[in-house]
Amino acid sequence: MTRPVFILNGPNLNLLGQREPEIYGHDTLADIENLCRETGKKLNLEVEFRQSNHEGVLVDWIQEAGSGSAAVIINAGALSHTSIAIMDALKAIPVPIIEVHLSNIFAREEFRHHSYISPIATGIICGFGPKGYQLGIEAVYESLKRP
Amino acid sequence: MTRPVFILNGPNLNLLGQREPEIYGHDTLADIENLCRETGKKLNLEVEFRQSNHEGVLVDWIQEAGSGSAAVIINAGALSHTSIAIMDALKAIPVPIIEVHLSNIFAREEFRHHSYISPIATGIICGFGPKGYQLGIEAVYESLKRP
Amino acid sequence: MTRPVFILNGPNLNLLGQREPEIYGHDTLADIENLCRETGKKLNLEVEFRQSNHEGVLVDWIQEAGSGSAAVIINAGALSHTSIAIMDALKAIPVPIIEVHLSNIFAREEFRHHSYISPIATGIICGFGPKGYQLGIEAVYESLKRP
Amino acid sequence: MTRPVFILNGPNLNLLGQREPEIYGHDTLADIENLCRETGKKLNLEVEFRQSNHEGVLVDWIQEAGSGSAAVIINAGALSHTSIAIMDALKAIPVPIIEVHLSNIFAREEFRHHSYISPIATGIICGFGPKGYQLGIEAVYESLKRP
Amino acid sequence: MTRPVFILNGPNLNLLGQREPEIYGHDTLADIENLCRETGKKLNLEVEFRQSNHEGVLVDWIQEAGSGSAAVIINAGALSHTSIAIMDALKAIPVPIIEVHLSNIFAREEFRHHSYISPIATGIICGFGPKGYQLGIEAVYESLKRP
Amino acid sequence: MTRPVFILNGPNLNLLGQREPEIYGHDTLADIENLCRETGKKLNLEVEFRQSNHEGVLVDWIQEAGSGSAAVIINAGALSHTSIAIMDALKAIPVPIIEVHLSNIFAREEFRHHSYISPIATGIICGFGPKGYQLGIEAVYESLKRP
Amino acid sequence: MTRPVFILNGPNLNLLGQREPEIYGHDTLADIENLCRETGKKLNLEVEFRQSNHEGVLVDWIQEAGSGSAAVIINAGALSHTSIAIMDALKAIPVPIIEVHLSNIFAREEFRHHSYISPIATGIICGFGPKGYQLGIEAVYESLKRP
Amino acid sequence: MTRPVFILNGPNLNLLGQREPEIYGHDTLADIENLCRETGKKLNLEVEFRQSNHEGVLVDWIQEAGSGSAAVIINAGALSHTSIAIMDALKAIPVPIIEVHLSNIFAREEFRHHSYISPIATGIICGFGPKGYQLGIEAVYESLKRP
Amino acid sequence: MTRPVFILNGPNLNLLGQREPEIYGHDTLADIENLCRETGKKLNLEVEFRQSNHEGVLVDWIQEAGSGSAAVIINAGALSHTSIAIMDALKAIPVPIIEVHLSNIFAREEFRHHSYISPIATGIICGFGPKGYQLGIEAVYESLKRP
Amino acid sequence: MTRPVFILNGPNLNLLGQREPEIYGHDTLADIENLCRETGKKLNLEVEFRQSNHEGVLVDWIQEAGSGSAAVIINAGALSHTSIAIMDALKAIPVPIIEVHLSNIFAREEFRHHSYISPIATGIICGFGPKGYQLGIEAVYESLKRP
Amino acid sequence: MTRPVFILNGPNLNLLGQREPEIYGHDTLADIENLCRETGKKLNLEVEFRQSNHEGVLVDWIQEAGSGSAAVIINAGALSHTSIAIMDALKAIPVPIIEVHLSNIFAREEFRHHSYISPIATGIICGFGPKGYQLGIEAVYESLKRP
Amino acid sequence: MTRPVFILNGPNLNLLGQREPEIYGHDTLADIENLCRETGKKLNLEVEFRQSNHEGVLVDWIQEAGSGSAAVIINAGALSHTSIAIMDALKAIPVPIIEVHLSNIFAREEFRHHSYISPIATGIICGFGPKGYQLGIEAVYESLKRP
Repeated sequence: MTRPVFILNGPNLNLLGQREPEIYGHDTLADIENLCRETGKKLNLEVEFRQSNHEGVLVDWIQEAGSGSAAVIINAGALSHTSIAIMDALKAIPVPIIEVHLSNIFAREEFRHHSYISPIATGIICGFGPKGYQLGIEAVYESLKRP
Repeated sequence: MTRPVFILNGPNLNLLGQREPEIYGHDTLADIENLCRETGKKLNLEVEFRQSNHEGVLVDWIQEAGSGSAAVIINAGALSHTSIAIMDALKAIPVPIIEVHLSNIFAREEFRHHSYISPIATGIICGFGPKGYQLGIEAVYESLKRP
Repeated sequence: MTRPVFILNGPNLNLLGQREPEIYGHDTLADIENLCRETGKKLNLEVEFRQSNHEGVLVDWIQEAGSGSAAVIINAGALSHTSIAIMDALKAIPVPIIEVHLSNIFAREEFRHHSYISPIATGIICGFGPKGYQLGIEAVYESLKRP
Repeated sequence: MTRPVFILNGPNLNLLGQREPEIYGHDTLADIENLCRETGKKLNLEVEFRQSNHEGVLVDWIQEAGSGSAAVIINAGALSHTSIAIMDALKAIPVPIIEVHLSNIFAREEFRHHSYISPIATGIICGFGPKGYQLGIEAVYESLKRP
Repeated sequence: MTRPVFILNGPNLNLLGQREPEIYGHDTLADIENLCRETGKKLNLEVEFRQSNHEGVLVDWIQEAGSGSAAVIINAGALSHTSIAIMDALKAIPVPIIEVHLSNIFAREEFRHHSYISPIATGIICGFGPKGYQLGIEAVYESLKRP
Repeated sequence: MTRPVFILNGPNLNLLGQREPEIYGHDTLADIENLCRETGKKLNLEVEFRQSNHEGVLVDWIQEAGSGSAAVIINAGALSHTSIAIMDALKAIPVPIIEVHLSNIFAREEFRHHSYISPIATGIICGFGPKGYQLGIEAVYESLKRP
Repeated sequence: MTRPVFILNGPNLNLLGQREPEIYGHDTLADIENLCRETGKKLNLEVEFRQSNHEGVLVDWIQEAGSGSAAVIINAGALSHTSIAIMDALKAIPVPIIEVHLSNIFAREEFRHHSYISPIATGIICGFGPKGYQLGIEAVYESLKRP
Repeated sequence: MTRPVFILNGPNLNLLGQREPEIYGHDTLADIENLCRETGKKLNLEVEFRQSNHEGVLVDWIQEAGSGSAAVIINAGALSHTSIAIMDALKAIPVPIIEVHLSNIFAREEFRHHSYISPIATGIICGFGPKGYQLGIEAVYESLKRP
Repeated sequence: MTRPVFILNGPNLNLLGQREPEIYGHDTLADIENLCRETGKKLNLEVEFRQSNHEGVLVDWIQEAGSGSAAVIINAGALSHTSIAIMDALKAIPVPIIEVHLSNIFAREEFRHHSYISPIATGIICGFGPKGYQLGIEAVYESLKRP
Repeated sequence: MTRPVFILNGPNLNLLGQREPEIYGHDTLADIENLCRETGKKLNLEVEFRQSNHEGVLVDWIQEAGSGSAAVIINAGALSHTSIAIMDALKAIPVPIIEVHLSNIFAREEFRHHSYISPIATGIICGFGPKGYQLGIEAVYESLKRP
Repeated sequence: MTRPVFILNGPNLNLLGQREPEIYGHDTLADIENLCRETGKKLNLEVEFRQSNHEGVLVDWIQEAGSGSAAVIINAGALSHTSIAIMDALKAIPVPIIEVHLSNIFAREEFRHHSYISPIATGIICGFGPKGYQLGIEAVYESLKRP
Repeated sequence: MTRPVFILNGPNLNLLGQREPEIYGHDTLADIENLCRETGKKLNLEVEFRQSNHEGVLVDWIQEAGSGSAAVIINAGALSHTSIAIMDALKAIPVPIIEVHLSNIFAREEFRHHSYISPIATGIICGFGPKGYQLGIEAVYESLKRP
């Protein structure tokens, strides 16, 4: 497998470890990136890990992933609940899409219960903290094995 | 660890492999049970795998799991969307709860988008087919490691 | 034709003749069973007539009907309005499904106007009292004639 | 019995056989009229069969049926969902009213799930195609037998 | 004053005296027409009294009233609640518009609480039975006195 | 007839003539009281005319009207839209109730379209300015004539 | 009085004392049963005390209570909010029905604010903990005194 | 115990015995006051019984009860459904609050199903007629016993 | 091409030039007809231009267009927002359908924002005044060129 | 400037310092009155500071302010969310209106998010505790400087 | 005319030809740009054609168009349904605004039926594919001719 | 105090003075910046004043303010109503947050009545034009004084 797995992170995820640790835990985004790289190495998957606070940049990256990635794991943060543009970009690319959320979005404010990404994702993993990214990479690995 | 992981399945999951295979795939519930047992074996977790079409039986089993299990992985099927009794039983027990759905419930009818179990689950895994159970067991394994 | 027509009745239909006769009339469920048997005899259709107050039992019976019946006529009573599990079981079986209601559910409380069974039924007959079962059997007869 | 059964059909039912045959089937309205006449002959009921695309004409006919018919079987088509005027006309006449729909309106667009006619009808038959008219005539026959 | 007051009646008002007399009373539409003519005579107002079950005919008449009447008193019956076309026709004409209802529409089914005519009427009179038409003519008389 | 007609006015109606004259006109409440007295005199009806900004006072007066009036004409102003207490008081008294509004409440903000008083009033008159009170008194006169 | 008062408890009430004690208190269901028996003894009322996690079993018991009890006191737990079948069973029996809730359901999640049982109960007692059962038995006692 | 129990009654409860006796029964408010005094005497509780049609007066009394009462039993009548001011006053005082309704508010109009008082009350008693006040006093007695 | 383009206009469009010119402009319907004929001539398309205030007549014409036209351009006026019958007729015919509105319906009352025609139209043109018809004819011309 | 600034306070604000201090702080209403007087003195504005639990009294005072004040600063408390009468009174007076809330109403229960006063106020200040009144007086001062 | 027509395209429109061709067709954005340039050339209008995935960039460009363009044709893609910022920018500029959509947004998911741009656009063209841009330029041409 | 107060402005606020001056007034953003600097100087607060049309840039700046500012005053313009990302960024930083709006958002379109920022702000100031920024700085000054 030569194309990497894109792991895209939306707004405020760069604050991890500082922001509301009772909800998001004490790991930083760098910790999660390391966890992802290690998991990828074990499964022989290259990992491309990025974060942006800009919806437009995320759309650009998703389009890039359309031809340059084996799969997309996305935690779009608050944009999950508001961005049809991200949903449309994801719908337009031919690779598997895994939606990940660190916290259990269904245990929080009502407006976080709906994600525009969920209906077009292959699968959703939510509430497991950083571990969710690892599960997502394993799920990608599994789905790439099936021809 | 001596107490098993309870894996509880709700109504119509005994039909797997026959019922709407374009949504639920061709694996039977027995195939999933085997996959779970194998995964459990690897991680040294005993697995107690059950299915019922009866809400009351599921509530009984969840109560039993309260003192007799290390964790509950539950795919309550259609009852996820209608049963507050199951939600209450789950809320009353002190073990980790993982909600699993074979299909992506957010890509189906509107009334399947809401689950009474989600807000009280530790984490949710949805859309990965039988693989979701495997991911769930790994997540349980991980959470049991942390003291 | 060797497989029988399943006629399944939901909660409280065993009270017929006693319960709110101004809505449900004075016939008992036994009267309706007799009417169904007579109608079946005329049309050379075997009739399997059952009633339960338990959602889970109805799901079990519907699954049984999947391989063991020529068609299902169902009056799920109050469960019509609340049970996605029954809807899922019915959707999973390959025989014609006729939904019957004794009273006109659209002339009653708002929460009785919606039935989870209606969208997946072949046809709906409602408001004709016991006569509705007879019409349902005739409709089954008709549909079984067409190859 | 000397007064005929009025069978009234609303807008676009004159297109039957051409319009969306995957929903409405290949029978024409003339075929249905013949089926109704034959059924009526067997049961010794005269049948007055009409169609109009005009709400006002349907209201006129329903008023005429008030004194000139033994019963009304009505498939008001799209007007079922929008016309309170037809509902009011039907409510004002003293004969039994049977609502018929060829297709299963509950399996179609949301705005077809509500009918202003249903709450004031004696009974509803829906989803059985042309056969539904026949069932409706039998139901009328039955109800006219009871004094 | 040479142009008459148009008094326009919508669907099923020709049934007055027969239809649900506990709601609409025992007066016929002819009785109401007489009452209106007498009231008009006293106030020196010519009265043009019409009824139709057809929305299109009512729109035609309202347009006619635009240039040919001093005012319009309208009881559009069930069409009050469904016809934007009648509302648009009334909004397009430069004469005073009085909406009348025989029964108290706010004491009946929810769907009768909203009238498309009310927001564009000069005034509304409702619940007074035939007397409401008389009050409407007096209101017209009053409004025509003011230059 | 010896008991007077109570004409009760709610909050801010004492500001008439000053408050938003483009909506409520230039007449003062005193002008309206005079108009009412004159109309009453012609019809031989005594008029008791009051205004209060206090919901509780209006409830007290309505209770007083229960035994001391021939009828109640009420313009409860803003309280029409919010006070169930006034509705309950009116429902508890055995005399005819006429609801009057100076402006056309259906042509104003959405929250003014619903009145708790309307469903329990004998009749509603709205949009005719001070003239509406006069029409209300005539309607009372008429209803008192009928035994 | 020879027929007993049925006291029926729904899902998860067998967990009392363990489940969310900050909401439900530290008394067990056995404690409540004892309290009920003592209260019954004082008032000379026999008490039949039962609990089930199964909707169908509760419906069976309610039907049994129809001919075999003097009154029903019911705390249907989570099923209060979802079961029309239980509501229908209760509506079909001719004895007084008292609805009891240990906690104040109006101070909890929105979906617990509505009970299908409340509109058909004689009376509702809610928020008083185990004491509520005692008040319920006293209310039954009172209502049975009145002929 | 030296501070009395405040029993506060809202608008129109002074009409009891006259107003809609099929809903509220034939007892007058004085009868209820007597019943309360007797019950209080038995339990050695002083009773302060008041009624007002004025929301502001009720708020004043609740504030007075904050320092001058042992508990508040309140039947706020129609204001239960509309007054946040009363809810705020009750929330601000440190004594137990019992909400009582004579009729079963859940069996009446939809707008009576919601009470602003319920979520902040200790407990709710509804549908038992005057007996409900007596149950309320007993509940107060019980709660005051617990330290 | 020998079959004409049907241009159908709904209720009140015959009032153009008189009715609310600040919304609809000063052109009459005859002016628009001329514009359409000229545009048709340029593109070698025959134009059949009609207007009716009657829903039923519009349904008749649409059915006629099913076999007799090359395309339908429709401005159904107020019926766009209320008529499912017109939508059904349009859905039943095999020619391109262009929906045109003179004014910007999205800048007007909320109830004009939804059109039953839009979801089944090929394309929608709205807000350009009479020019919209011309654009519609050009769009038809374009679509007829593509085989 | 000779006319004072009216500072009007609604129900329960007289409890400040006692009621829910975690929301409203420890200052009493007298403390706030002093703060306002001091601020007024600095800006040479006379301050008229009042509180009532009665909606009607607040309406009376607002009407008084119409001719007797330079501006109104109002914290209507719970009545902000329910009283159209207060909104109407404020709309009827020609002076600037400043709405003040001590707590952040948008961070509290949903029913406190809407205020009838906000849309007709000049400006809104909310969440700053007693300091909000001071800011309000400065805003009044500023607006009075502009001719 | 010296100022160009701005043609602005929102997120994912750069994917045209690849993304969901059954909805958006096989033309690329470059094809559409060419079509626009050709149309502009014929009508002597200069065309400035741009695309961005960034809401902020689109807002910047719209502001630039305020002083630098003759008109704006905008297909904001998914941002049409979510961006009030774009709506505000468009409302702030004094040139004609044409909203274009390639697909028929009313035939797609519910959340695409509402556009924040529509109510403030001069006109809307939707469902005609690339041809819609051409019609938009013609409409601009027409509107610029009128002084 | 060494860290500055961040004053952040969202999309289109750079158009102030040009855009809808009847709503936003004639001051430019530079005028407001000057007003803020002067006010800051008086109170010895450094002011960092910025504007962007890009949601992502605003999120970046808010994160920067988390460690680099004493407080944030934010007028997010249209993004107030749509951006959960901005809300999340603000929630993640430990300094006081003041929300400011120039116009009275509650007197405008419904979709401007809700702000995602309000529930997490310290306080809200709205409707006072540029003066609102000045009040915001004073509020910041006050809150920084309190330890």
